[in-house]
Amino acid sequence: MFQNEAFRALDREECVRLLAKVPVGRVVYTRHALPAVLPVNFSLDTDASVLLRTSPGSDLVRAIDGVVVAFEADEFDAAARSGWSVVVTGRASVVTDPAEHERLSQSGPTSWMPLRDAAFVRIESEMVTGRELR
Amino acid sequence: MFQNEAFRALDREECVRLLAKVPVGRVVYTRHALPAVLPVNFSLDTDASVLLRTSPGSDLVRAIDGVVVAFEADEFDAAARSGWSVVVTGRASVVTDPAEHERLSQSGPTSWMPLRDAAFVRIESEMVTGRELR
Repeated sequence: MFQNEAFRALDREECVRLLAKVPVGRVVYTRHALPAVLPVNFSLDTDASVLLRTSPGSDLVRAIDGVVVAFEADEFDAAARSGWSVVVTGRASVVTDPAEHERLSQSGPTSWMPLRDAAFVRIESEMVTGRELR
Repeated sequence: MFQNEAFRALDREECVRLLAKVPVGRVVYTRHALPAVLPVNFSLDTDASVLLRTSPGSDLVRAIDGVVVAFEADEFDAAARSGWSVVVTGRASVVTDPAEHERLSQSGPTSWMPLRDAAFVRIESEMVTGRELR
């Protein structure tokens, strides 16, 4: 439905502002050569990269560390048939710098899941696109 | 967050029941060798395949016709930190049979967008997985 004149393209600033409003997005990647998607809660870093908190040994970490992924968030109102969608595309990498890990442990994303150890994954906001359905 | 014991796996019947509750899901595919994701409204066919209505010449149709894609829908409650996610993985194909096209024109998915011509895309529900965050 989302490929014609009824959409308004959003600029990067608008996209980042909208992303900051929602707690959950979806990591889009490839697993065993098939398209895969996983909802995650997230936060935005000061440079608008997407930060996830997960388990160090998770399937997600294994699948996306060092790989270009997409990250999508949206909000829709079915009654009004309106809404927005933002996609961040960039390289995902596990945070390995101890000082950075410590900073994110204090101020970074939380997880909705109880985690024994935390790994942080950063998705660089190399390409940020969005559109609004009016 | 979504890879540990706090999740309950959903069986196919539960997944289909949940999918039927929501108007919007996300097609996950590859475009220009990059992971891509597009929110779409959809309906379920009687065999639980996912049906989309779009424009015949859309980028989406060009990218996914004949290709295995994932289709994801979810609902989350941030305050309760609960929710569910369902992923259908299967081959997408444009409906070319005239009788089938006519049937879907009458009873199939609508689009939130004004479309001059309608193309219907079916995503076979070859693999249906879901989980619930408790």
